[in-house]
Amino acid sequence: MSASMEVMIDAALDLYRDTFPGERLNIADLGCSSGPNAVLAISQIVDAVDEKRHQLGHDHIEFQCFLNDLPWNDFNAVFKALPEFCEKVEEEKGRDHSMCFIVGVPGSFYGRLFPKRSLHLIISLVSEGVHLNRGNLWISKTSPPCVFNSYLEQFQKDFSVFLMSRSEEIVIGGRMVLTLMGRKSKSPSDEAFGCTWELMARILMDMASEGLIEAEKIDSFNFPFYTPSLDELVELIKREGTFTINRLEFLQMGSRDYDIDHGRKGHDWVKVTRAALEPMLESHFGRDIMDDFFIRIEESFNESISPRRNAEVNPVLVSLVRKG
Amino acid sequence: MSASMEVMIDAALDLYRDTFPGERLNIADLGCSSGPNAVLAISQIVDAVDEKRHQLGHDHIEFQCFLNDLPWNDFNAVFKALPEFCEKVEEEKGRDHSMCFIVGVPGSFYGRLFPKRSLHLIISLVSEGVHLNRGNLWISKTSPPCVFNSYLEQFQKDFSVFLMSRSEEIVIGGRMVLTLMGRKSKSPSDEAFGCTWELMARILMDMASEGLIEAEKIDSFNFPFYTPSLDELVELIKREGTFTINRLEFLQMGSRDYDIDHGRKGHDWVKVTRAALEPMLESHFGRDIMDDFFIRIEESFNESISPRRNAEVNPVLVSLVRKG
Repeated sequence: MSASMEVMIDAALDLYRDTFPGERLNIADLGCSSGPNAVLAISQIVDAVDEKRHQLGHDHIEFQCFLNDLPWNDFNAVFKALPEFCEKVEEEKGRDHSMCFIVGVPGSFYGRLFPKRSLHLIISLVSEGVHLNRGNLWISKTSPPCVFNSYLEQFQKDFSVFLMSRSEEIVIGGRMVLTLMGRKSKSPSDEAFGCTWELMARILMDMASEGLIEAEKIDSFNFPFYTPSLDELVELIKREGTFTINRLEFLQMGSRDYDIDHGRKGHDWVKVTRAALEPMLESHFGRDIMDDFFIRIEESFNESISPRRNAEVNPVLVSLVRKG
Repeated sequence: MSASMEVMIDAALDLYRDTFPGERLNIADLGCSSGPNAVLAISQIVDAVDEKRHQLGHDHIEFQCFLNDLPWNDFNAVFKALPEFCEKVEEEKGRDHSMCFIVGVPGSFYGRLFPKRSLHLIISLVSEGVHLNRGNLWISKTSPPCVFNSYLEQFQKDFSVFLMSRSEEIVIGGRMVLTLMGRKSKSPSDEAFGCTWELMARILMDMASEGLIEAEKIDSFNFPFYTPSLDELVELIKREGTFTINRLEFLQMGSRDYDIDHGRKGHDWVKVTRAALEPMLESHFGRDIMDDFFIRIEESFNESISPRRNAEVNPVLVSLVRKG
């Protein structure tokens, strides 16, 4: 998140400058989740813009912030934490703070969520660790069998629907900043978490041979996750046609991080991976084998995950401007 | 609700006519609660306007519907029910239905909840039964002792803050339809649920004399509920100054209903009253005495609640237009 924060804040400051003396900025975070980070990105953006407004001696503006996630996200937890959060902001900033109105928007972003031209800035943050937890499956439907071509097709459909929906919702000149996981290799067979999938598959097979899980369960397991290349993203954005690409690049993090202290990073990497993947694995293979499974993953980390291979999957930053 | 529905729908149709060919209507329900009725009022309004649009052969518009309640309202329950609700609408109406975007707004309506001039229609429905359950305490702070004058003062403050907040949020020409409990008598000493309070007080005293509750608990019990007269409401609305009164009148329901079948109505009345008041009584006096308490209330209903006295407290309908 921190790697893309700067880009989101720049986009928001550009918008503030371009719409001045506009009275309002409407911001949406798609896939906000429900943890303590649910309002983190949006509140940093609001703070940065309001700080700039204060520096320039401008009048207060108003922010309307839309937190979106799927209808079964725990919005209650997000909402209950808001009064305390707002009090803290008020304490820190005192009275010279623009008003910020936070609302919850339940629904899938593979379709319309907002009225036409009602948003100035849209963000959606998907990092390796929160990719699935944030409800941000970049493939909307899971349909076995796990064939890469059908995954690519589904991703193309989904991403196009995503772009078309946002295109209607955002004002002319509005900005959209996304992060999603992408792959550096050209061929999708070398795809998404290549080494992770390999390692997971090998350990699942080991456990099946030890009789801990049924072999058929492995065949029927389907992981709705596709990591596009930059070329594929550019192609889809151009085909949709209403957004100008401001930036589209890999965020550098994975390979460097895992390089520094391989042992320690292995442990961290498993924690992050477990947070992201366990719900889906657990619902298919059952809770009982999860501890065993992730202990084996961690033990095999050093031998399996080479920095080079891991670097093939990285978060991609996409910053777009809605054309006039 | 049904008694005020017609007025709300008329207000919405007026707005649709006045803003045509506007693309959007923004509607807020303040104190939506979380039961199956949470989206009922707003969906009936949307249906009525969209039906009119269809009859007139106009293009689709878009509705953005804001469901507000306190942050500890169960928004999860509301949101989880939405996909099914939307599917049903789609089935019934087919494709020729305007889009409706539903969002949740956590927060107290004794303060700002929405950006300036961002709403066309505001509704808030408070009936005898749901007065408290809907989070709609028309007095924001409870401060013992239970003195009617301090209740009146607090109500005046609260209602004024409510009006001022909504005045900023609503567009010029926008409409607001409220129902709240009001009293027919001039003097507040004859006030709010007069007979109910008397009956409750008498039974609490009985139970204290039998040693079932502590007498001091009765002294420290405070019920933050004030029912204004129509004159008091007119005065407060005029003093705030930005709304024209379109309608302000009692909805006729209470006395007539209780007249018809006094015995049966006693039972129903206790059910409604219990639903409304039990949470507050229970948190003060404890769960153990609740059954006993309400059985005694029901037994005493016939002798205590005369139709005449009960008729003194009735829901008031307030329909306002934001001045230019």
